[in-house]
Amino acid sequence: MQKRPAGLVVAAAVFLFCIGTVHAEDGYDLWLRYRPLPVAEREALAPLARTIVTAPGKPSPTVRAAIAELKRGLGGLLAADVPESVTPADGAIVLGTPADMPAIAALHLPLDGLGSEGYVIRRAEIADHEVTVVAANGDRGLLYGAFALLRRAQTGAGLAGIDVASKPKIGLRVLNHWDNLDGTIERGYAGQSLWDWWHLPDFRDPRYTDYARANASVGINGTVLNNVNANADSLTARYIAKAAALADVFRPYGIRVYLSARFSAPMEIGGLDTADPLDPKVRDWWRAKADEIYAAIPDFGGFLVKANSEGQPGPQDYGRSHADGANMLAAAVAPHGGIVMWRAFVYAADNPEDRAKQAYDEFKPLDGKFADNVLVQVKNGPIDFQPREPFHPLFGAMPHTPLMMEFQITKEYLGFATHLVYLGALYEEVLKADTYAKGPGSTVARVIDGELHGYARTGIAGVANTGDDRDWCGSTFEQANWYAFGRLAWDPETSARSIAREWLEMTFTDDERFVEPALGMMMRSREAVVDYMTPLGLAHLMATGHHYGPGPWVDDLDRPEWNPVYYHRADAGGIGFDRTKSGSNAVAQYAKPVARRFGDLDTVSDQYLLWFHHLPWDYRMKSGETLWEALVAHYDKGVAEVEAMQATWASLEPWVDAERFQKTRIYLTIQHREARWWRDACLAYFMHVSGLPLPGDSRAPAHTLEYYEGLSFPFAPGR
Amino acid sequence: MQKRPAGLVVAAAVFLFCIGTVHAEDGYDLWLRYRPLPVAEREALAPLARTIVTAPGKPSPTVRAAIAELKRGLGGLLAADVPESVTPADGAIVLGTPADMPAIAALHLPLDGLGSEGYVIRRAEIADHEVTVVAANGDRGLLYGAFALLRRAQTGAGLAGIDVASKPKIGLRVLNHWDNLDGTIERGYAGQSLWDWWHLPDFRDPRYTDYARANASVGINGTVLNNVNANADSLTARYIAKAAALADVFRPYGIRVYLSARFSAPMEIGGLDTADPLDPKVRDWWRAKADEIYAAIPDFGGFLVKANSEGQPGPQDYGRSHADGANMLAAAVAPHGGIVMWRAFVYAADNPEDRAKQAYDEFKPLDGKFADNVLVQVKNGPIDFQPREPFHPLFGAMPHTPLMMEFQITKEYLGFATHLVYLGALYEEVLKADTYAKGPGSTVARVIDGELHGYARTGIAGVANTGDDRDWCGSTFEQANWYAFGRLAWDPETSARSIAREWLEMTFTDDERFVEPALGMMMRSREAVVDYMTPLGLAHLMATGHHYGPGPWVDDLDRPEWNPVYYHRADAGGIGFDRTKSGSNAVAQYAKPVARRFGDLDTVSDQYLLWFHHLPWDYRMKSGETLWEALVAHYDKGVAEVEAMQATWASLEPWVDAERFQKTRIYLTIQHREARWWRDACLAYFMHVSGLPLPGDSRAPAHTLEYYEGLSFPFAPGR
Repeated sequence: MQKRPAGLVVAAAVFLFCIGTVHAEDGYDLWLRYRPLPVAEREALAPLARTIVTAPGKPSPTVRAAIAELKRGLGGLLAADVPESVTPADGAIVLGTPADMPAIAALHLPLDGLGSEGYVIRRAEIADHEVTVVAANGDRGLLYGAFALLRRAQTGAGLAGIDVASKPKIGLRVLNHWDNLDGTIERGYAGQSLWDWWHLPDFRDPRYTDYARANASVGINGTVLNNVNANADSLTARYIAKAAALADVFRPYGIRVYLSARFSAPMEIGGLDTADPLDPKVRDWWRAKADEIYAAIPDFGGFLVKANSEGQPGPQDYGRSHADGANMLAAAVAPHGGIVMWRAFVYAADNPEDRAKQAYDEFKPLDGKFADNVLVQVKNGPIDFQPREPFHPLFGAMPHTPLMMEFQITKEYLGFATHLVYLGALYEEVLKADTYAKGPGSTVARVIDGELHGYARTGIAGVANTGDDRDWCGSTFEQANWYAFGRLAWDPETSARSIAREWLEMTFTDDERFVEPALGMMMRSREAVVDYMTPLGLAHLMATGHHYGPGPWVDDLDRPEWNPVYYHRADAGGIGFDRTKSGSNAVAQYAKPVARRFGDLDTVSDQYLLWFHHLPWDYRMKSGETLWEALVAHYDKGVAEVEAMQATWASLEPWVDAERFQKTRIYLTIQHREARWWRDACLAYFMHVSGLPLPGDSRAPAHTLEYYEGLSFPFAPGR
Repeated sequence: MQKRPAGLVVAAAVFLFCIGTVHAEDGYDLWLRYRPLPVAEREALAPLARTIVTAPGKPSPTVRAAIAELKRGLGGLLAADVPESVTPADGAIVLGTPADMPAIAALHLPLDGLGSEGYVIRRAEIADHEVTVVAANGDRGLLYGAFALLRRAQTGAGLAGIDVASKPKIGLRVLNHWDNLDGTIERGYAGQSLWDWWHLPDFRDPRYTDYARANASVGINGTVLNNVNANADSLTARYIAKAAALADVFRPYGIRVYLSARFSAPMEIGGLDTADPLDPKVRDWWRAKADEIYAAIPDFGGFLVKANSEGQPGPQDYGRSHADGANMLAAAVAPHGGIVMWRAFVYAADNPEDRAKQAYDEFKPLDGKFADNVLVQVKNGPIDFQPREPFHPLFGAMPHTPLMMEFQITKEYLGFATHLVYLGALYEEVLKADTYAKGPGSTVARVIDGELHGYARTGIAGVANTGDDRDWCGSTFEQANWYAFGRLAWDPETSARSIAREWLEMTFTDDERFVEPALGMMMRSREAVVDYMTPLGLAHLMATGHHYGPGPWVDDLDRPEWNPVYYHRADAGGIGFDRTKSGSNAVAQYAKPVARRFGDLDTVSDQYLLWFHHLPWDYRMKSGETLWEALVAHYDKGVAEVEAMQATWASLEPWVDAERFQKTRIYLTIQHREARWWRDACLAYFMHVSGLPLPGDSRAPAHTLEYYEGLSFPFAPGR
């Protein structure tokens, strides 16, 4: 290797070389971009980030990860190397636990009660040096603290007055990957699975580390690798070895691996003739299987189970209850400290009842009957991840059973990865909903963070929107939903708006001329999708199977509750599902004040109007419009909002790199076309059943109802 | 935007920023990496690459692409910006056609006979300035010339004495993508399809441009977008619009788009009740369909068709011949200048004859019966892309019908993307094979380049190994096969070794300490896979369906010629397929001197021994060993070669970045394990049928034959 004297010429050459070879902004870096800060911010930060100091001796893998991230992050933000050291000096960032570092212990920081994951960051004096301390009770806290410090630096807040103490309010913060062993992802819109099962365990793609970094940066501490519609092969020795390789990569980042367990696995891969949870052979098989898994993955998290739901096997196949099934698996993993997440998403094929009532009806009687290491995982609403649903009535109704929240990050029903819809607003709406389980203020957030009922275990799950697309999520703005899920999992009382702002600043720029308009666009985007798909409490109007586009006319599927007509119940007389006393009385599953509010036309919000009530088309809304006029107005507003988003985005071009700008611009074009399609197809259908014309100034659908009914999309993604 | 005075500090900061953010060597850049040259080479090149000069006025999209590539390439190699200009000066690189640039015309370069794609590059004097001229008759020639100049610079050859004239020997140089509309790739081992059908035509992934650049850099000028096992939907208006968007991206790079046509499309999407090629309605439908396609894609290349093969529909369904079918489609595209590529890969389910004979038997009688714009596409060997086959007997046997070569770049039968196998050696072996059709020297290369029979059209196809994996091909060394295909398509008489050397220098480094050992490894790699899979002329020993791993014992598939036992015919008495006069007499399909050589045990090469002969286990080889001893020795040698590759690669670590080094290292580990598996499983089986023990010093298989027979891989890729 020949060397030339350092100097401007070389530096300029390097500059040009860099220009030529730095990859475009393809979204791979997510919110961890670490591009150089504006000069003023850089000059303020540099003196406070001169070195990274950790305890002498070999750092643990987790501390090494924290150091590496600080070096990468600060190095990028400052456009300068930040060296490591073991000696505090002015401007040092000192990472340590009281146990490892006497200088930290001597500061007597308020670490009590922060647990193993919390951290303190503050300015302090160590050995006469002004430093920034990142302190925690354990290494995972240090890693989370490092990311928190970087977030602060990335968003231009600087370290000058930093004084932060934080710990997660929810213990278990997991992604659910609906990834299949053949690499496809059910309801995935960002390519194939991140897991290259075929080359695992031998080849560990460097991308796995970046996945772990992204999750750790928002506090996600668990990942269920495979689809809840599970294949028993994932529990064979071959696949356990593959999962173990992923666990090895994720471990330094505080992320445990979980597996979805197929309930009938003892028959499919164990050679048994039953999967009855009370059969001793079955119990032995699962115990041995758990032992086998823990031998390969000592910190294996446990199982997620979808049982007796949508054709999956389960304990009811043997006349046993969900509790019997869950507790059998719980017993298998308990000796190893594992848990079972048992999904409450069930609805019976032969149940003529309102589908919205079934999970409650099945699980409420089981309250208190689950083993200590079982959590019941409940979707945010009683149907299935619709653009808007009221909160699930189980929240607040099972004081003796830890309930986990299940949000969907992937947008199965909200326009796939193409539509710009910020889900932070949806999550916040659900988390802030008041169950009244113990009087006012009994929010869903306080149920799942364990405060309301004193749950010993707490958890929250998000159905991942990741895939092997270069930008992970299929679009830049989809990344915000992964980010928001993680940040709300850490603290479900954070505001969706503050999270969106943080994400925008990290992902694009902190220039207010960009941030404010973009923030407005994000915050209105969820209401827009509700308006152009399912306004006024409507739900489940999508096409069959792939769930792409509208299908309110569908009425010929095998099970009644698979059909959109089951949900909207529109005919010449009116529209909506009567869930009051005069109907299915689903309202009665909520606490009395909530039931009263939902059940009464005077108090129910327009947002849930047709979810709970069947009303004539000429029903007079609070606004003075008829229901029909209001419905049309909402559809029109949804489309108009997308047009407004297009205009806003176009105005933001100066602040966005060409690649990400263009992709979002084009996706908004698609979203607009599809919003029009939803609006036109739904209105064409409702005009048909109601016999009503459109109000005067509302644009006629572009095509006939027959046209919309005839569309088919055999290669729609996500199946 | 604030600015700081330029200077060393800023440059250093930029340097550090670059270090932090330049992506790892993930293989995305292929052989177009353009990293800075060693200083001596840079200093030699810089004075000869000061500016890029083109004719005044707006350059065509193709010339713009050439300029952009030169700026990117030279800028990277020199670590310095190379500006554009319209005025020749010393050190300029002058790109132009005689028509566009009088100064080029005045040089009277030898452009006659170079056609629209050829180019001349040489040092010249223009207006008293010493320049390097890249001249051509058309813009595509300029683009190819620009890439040729860059290749020269990348491989350290410099521009000092450059004097090159080149044109492609084969007209049609196409990739065949076996990509399905749902994003899967049949026999693809590098992820999903590059084509994001779902978001086309709206979103044009920047990657499409990089795909076009890579192809143009090796002279590939066509791409068949969809699988030969075609879905008729690819011919609907919706998908034509998507293909048109891709064609728009590829056009500036000289690449035409083609589609695989499903023969029964008139019934499936046209509402007809027949696809009989002689039915006027059918003919009209295809003519209208061609008109529709050409309205969207004015330079659409034409159709590729797999008909009456492996269950695909075709003209024989109506008692018509392949020529009837091909000519009907040819008539539809002829008015637009399109062509039809009609595959000769056929074998009939009800034909008890030797499968190796069937394509010849069906197509030879049709010689001269195809329309002028039809090419018949013939796989390199008579079976199906095996590790080694003799050349296909149709080559040389159809003087009146242009035959295209079909090579497989994706390694369906050679270890998928995981095994390091350089296919340049395989392609070269086939192209150099002598058909004796017109006496000695009638090589396959001279058949397909049209020289031997005076074909008016010439073509070569490669079944692509690309997918959306970050490194395009699933591994770095797989990229060499794409590269080698393109380079051999341009000139089928190039040596595989020189291509491999070029590729290594562009992809890694031109340091001889790296290149020589790596080159040796590549050049031996194809013989290694033959040895550990199918030595001595064996073929088709793989497992069923996914073709992953060995399955010589398989004998229970529906059609006889799907079973490995059909091919090896091993029993206690011997092994091999008698294709001499005493057997199927397939040798008679070759020209007499070839037939004699293959058919005679004294002259047939060991490479083809068991392809043409059934022999007793104790047959005495020329080496003096028995056949059994020789077979075992080949299997042992194959495994030993992989071990040698592992050792070689380990020694090359100093010259390779960590990411690409590690992935190749791990893949070689997998290859070694799988080579052992092939050897052990095949020998266990052959020991079983022959009753023979292994020769003394040969290692016993690691497992029993039953173990190997019991293995199953439900999620193997590529189906």
